[in-house]
Amino acid sequence: MYRNFAIVPRIIFGRGSFNQLNDVLQENRSSGGFMIFLLDDVFAGSELEKRIPVHAADHIVHVNVDDEPKTSYIDALVEQINGFDNGLPDAIIGIGGGSTLDIAKAVSLLLTNPGSSADYQGWDLIEIPGIYKVGIPTLSGTGAEISRTTILTGPEKKLGINSDYTLYDQIMLDPELLDGVPKDQWFYTGMDCYIHDVESLAGTYINEFSKAYGEKSLELCRQVFLEDHQDGADKLMMASYFGGMSIAYSQVGACHALSYGLSFLLGIHHGIGCCIAFNHLEEFYPEGVAEFKQMMERHDISLPENVTAGLSDTQMEHMIGVALALEPLWDNCLGKNWRELMPVSRVRALYERM
Amino acid sequence: MYRNFAIVPRIIFGRGSFNQLNDVLQENRSSGGFMIFLLDDVFAGSELEKRIPVHAADHIVHVNVDDEPKTSYIDALVEQINGFDNGLPDAIIGIGGGSTLDIAKAVSLLLTNPGSSADYQGWDLIEIPGIYKVGIPTLSGTGAEISRTTILTGPEKKLGINSDYTLYDQIMLDPELLDGVPKDQWFYTGMDCYIHDVESLAGTYINEFSKAYGEKSLELCRQVFLEDHQDGADKLMMASYFGGMSIAYSQVGACHALSYGLSFLLGIHHGIGCCIAFNHLEEFYPEGVAEFKQMMERHDISLPENVTAGLSDTQMEHMIGVALALEPLWDNCLGKNWRELMPVSRVRALYERM
Repeated sequence: MYRNFAIVPRIIFGRGSFNQLNDVLQENRSSGGFMIFLLDDVFAGSELEKRIPVHAADHIVHVNVDDEPKTSYIDALVEQINGFDNGLPDAIIGIGGGSTLDIAKAVSLLLTNPGSSADYQGWDLIEIPGIYKVGIPTLSGTGAEISRTTILTGPEKKLGINSDYTLYDQIMLDPELLDGVPKDQWFYTGMDCYIHDVESLAGTYINEFSKAYGEKSLELCRQVFLEDHQDGADKLMMASYFGGMSIAYSQVGACHALSYGLSFLLGIHHGIGCCIAFNHLEEFYPEGVAEFKQMMERHDISLPENVTAGLSDTQMEHMIGVALALEPLWDNCLGKNWRELMPVSRVRALYERM
Repeated sequence: MYRNFAIVPRIIFGRGSFNQLNDVLQENRSSGGFMIFLLDDVFAGSELEKRIPVHAADHIVHVNVDDEPKTSYIDALVEQINGFDNGLPDAIIGIGGGSTLDIAKAVSLLLTNPGSSADYQGWDLIEIPGIYKVGIPTLSGTGAEISRTTILTGPEKKLGINSDYTLYDQIMLDPELLDGVPKDQWFYTGMDCYIHDVESLAGTYINEFSKAYGEKSLELCRQVFLEDHQDGADKLMMASYFGGMSIAYSQVGACHALSYGLSFLLGIHHGIGCCIAFNHLEEFYPEGVAEFKQMMERHDISLPENVTAGLSDTQMEHMIGVALALEPLWDNCLGKNWRELMPVSRVRALYERM
């Protein structure tokens, strides 16, 4: 059985395409309706915020991503938007990095699906289409713009709301919006893409569809992080999009699984968490890790060390449990007998090195 | 202004995925409804035909593509389907090469839009969505599975029905279906893809989106036509898909423009027409043509020569007119001053060499 893969059905790509946002939204505006722009609060008061085509009844809601998105935060945002008291919005527009894009996806779904966002963490639990949603990345690498998931930290687990309804209806890829991102954030987020390409291409699930996307994404990452190109932002945006598409028939692997544990127990953000983990995964991805170290050196990046040193035994066991619960990731990485190859002791040893 | 690019929103890729067709269609079946399978008549009575999941009220209609699709043929098929006298079908499923896929797209549109298909040749003239449509290629290279056009030969012109409504709702890419295609047809159709990658990448319209797709498509074509790979059919299917996606923000060029003239006046099919033209276009695409000749040699392909020799002056002028009418193609190839660079005499000289 092959997956019948759903794709974001509309894309606009180009420098300055953000200026077309009003036109793009127009056909989804209802008479008397309103739209919600969820904007990463680092842009509060910025030029970018001033360029948002806000109509009279629209709202800009600043979202905070100091922590990775929590289910409780989604539920609070949904309550806030329901409190605007003029029915459901015509559209949810997410503008920001991967966390903001994930928040916008989750809010769109929870405005139409009852209960808490934590109820839907898992696979294909959403049954009602969400509000029409538009994703506009200002950081590239997570693939959140194209993925069928929104990764949330719930009371019990860090796990995505995975469903075809999670996909954006429209994305706008404007490389100009990447200007001004701090270098370390640019690097960590870009490495999320690089690492998931490596994991996808080295995995047991790969087929020619995912390979075509993954290989090109990897090549673009190399151009961005090991060469100098004036249009590096354009390339990184395409790398992220292709990296996300590569997951269609593949999966990520050991690094993403381990990084989930780091995020859940230590609150480490996904991009840097992937970097901290990948840096110690030569035994899984020898060439990828060597190249990653070259990229770090070229961009003068130094990673935190000994991040797991202060954990209690119970916390360490919890972290190991979070990582090992991501079964498809280990299956993709190591094959059917992954449980034998990946005993708790091996996971612990890896975490202790980080 | 950047194009807001519409994409086929659902893809299933994999060897043997054709076996999932019944499941894929299921959610679009209405109670009492029926579906129409438009099958290239080379498959009449074949094993493939027997594998089509035909329900009691469904019809398989054999389509003939000895000639490239004509508007009159589309209109006749629509009349035939309307004559089935049980309302509109739930779905149109095209199974075949580029011509069959184009026929299915046009039939889907003309079942809901009034008048003749010739009325809609052009850009964005379709105003009513067509019938839900599924495309299943049995030949790869045209990009018809992903394009927003269906190329038809009308009473006055060969021109596509270009619109977002022309896109398939679902495509099924099963590399097994390419087994058994005659070598020359495999080659000519694959070269359609190779040539449009070369034209797209060398063009003035190219951006990083189209470049990422075009470069990977070209690389896959090289693997298929200059190397030996067991999964060549998988690669060619992806090359065709990526080649079609590359056209998002680019265009084809001189070769496609000239091949339209060959098709219109001489009834030469698109794939072989592109090859006949490209073989003489070193002055536009020196490296591409050199590599194309290598591919021809490797696969022992010999092209017809002097195909324009028997044309009258009037016919030659008509052919030149057809080619020069494709303004965006020349603009992409040569830039804004293409008219100066491409006088009638130069087009004539090129045609006389073919």
